Amino acid sequence: MSKTNIDKYILPGERLDDLQRNGFYLIQDPSLFCFGMDAVLLADFARAGRKDRVLDMCTGNGVIPVLMAARGKGAAFTGIEYQEKSADLARRNAIINDLEEGFRVIRGDVCEARELCPGEVFDVITCNPPYMAEGEGLVNPGDEKAWARHEIKCTFGDIAREAGALLREGGHIYLVHRPRRLVEIIGTLAGHGLEPKRLRFVHSFAQDKASMVLIDAVKGGGAQIITEAPLIIYESDGQYTKEIKELY
Amino acid sequence: MSKTNIDKYILPGERLDDLQRNGFYLIQDPSLFCFGMDAVLLADFARAGRKDRVLDMCTGNGVIPVLMAARGKGAAFTGIEYQEKSADLARRNAIINDLEEGFRVIRGDVCEARELCPGEVFDVITCNPPYMAEGEGLVNPGDEKAWARHEIKCTFGDIAREAGALLREGGHIYLVHRPRRLVEIIGTLAGHGLEPKRLRFVHSFAQDKASMVLIDAVKGGGAQIITEAPLIIYESDGQYTKEIKELY
Repeated sequence: MSKTNIDKYILPGERLDDLQRNGFYLIQDPSLFCFGMDAVLLADFARAGRKDRVLDMCTGNGVIPVLMAARGKGAAFTGIEYQEKSADLARRNAIINDLEEGFRVIRGDVCEARELCPGEVFDVITCNPPYMAEGEGLVNPGDEKAWARHEIKCTFGDIAREAGALLREGGHIYLVHRPRRLVEIIGTLAGHGLEPKRLRFVHSFAQDKASMVLIDAVKGGGAQIITEAPLIIYESDGQYTKEIKELY
Repeated sequence: MSKTNIDKYILPGERLDDLQRNGFYLIQDPSLFCFGMDAVLLADFARAGRKDRVLDMCTGNGVIPVLMAARGKGAAFTGIEYQEKSADLARRNAIINDLEEGFRVIRGDVCEARELCPGEVFDVITCNPPYMAEGEGLVNPGDEKAWARHEIKCTFGDIAREAGALLREGGHIYLVHRPRRLVEIIGTLAGHGLEPKRLRFVHSFAQDKASMVLIDAVKGGGAQIITEAPLIIYESDGQYTKEIKELY
């Protein structure tokens, strides 16, 4: 869609971000959760063939499906989002990127993903879930941003259970999460038949501990795992590394 | 011990390596398992206070206790080794490094570590275990080197069980292993009350997948984990990185 036409879809208080890739844009509402580097890294880490049906759990404003589509990954996307305002943003982001046919947004609770997608099976599932367990840190229950950060609406166990049921045998789930919860995450995935196959740790600087981990797990996979080269965000002089520059 | 006196302890076919640190040496037998970078990295990764009792499971020629002593870590070491030839080497390595009092070598099976150390409790346990599960790769049962590489005598589950029993509450176990078995290793440790707290992945080059992982687990620890900065062995020009040069 042309930039002029896109403007009609932007509501007061919202902003339009140029994703700098193949003419894709994203409307964001700064009062809701805006996408960060984790979404960009996850969309890059995730693999999806041109015929794959992709489910994005906790899709927010739809950034993961839009970024994946911009990279030529996946044939048809479904996004599930609990917050009506975010789901509405995701629908508009589908339209402005000419993805109406290819990106369906469902307003609903990912804890009930199977009921929301009855009889469906997906080749690929992506999820940028809330990182913080309930009870971690301060939460204002009225704060819509908190839902995206805290496991208020769904726990990681809920996500793994629904994903394990909705993924086809041999299908992949791609996640980004906090490394400090790695043991729990790996155990929970395995408990739902999702065997971690590939990890990639993200470090702000090469000498820092990891701040994020990208996880690729396979439904019904074997118990072998590859830990990929570390992804470093900044050079020692504070500039983005070559790899990060290429992502943006 | 002076170099001249050390020579008396070297048997035909064996060689003496200068550990390049505080006058520590190591006798090795090339027909048995010789220490590699994994041992050096583990001895560096492991933390032990000056009063700590340290148990090294699968001690081989005693390289881990000798390297830790050379770094001023630990007060008293116990090493368990199944192969008599290696245990004898470890005893001689204790003597030539003036560690007779501080490094006791027990010839026995780590599967029975509790019976070998009755009533004892350790502050720290180290282990550079066989990396390959039984059935992985080709094994010549008569090959003594194979015992150090393959889980012929003991499985990782045996090691975790014995370590979980011999470690004091709050004590640490330090391991080096293959990243591809990470999921299994973490699960097995947790099953024996040993909660992984710190991981460090080792990559030959910065752009390579990890070839080793260093693991620090705590008996009775909580379920939070830190993934430290990646340890890179070679610069892109094939030279050792600054960090590796400092270890040697």
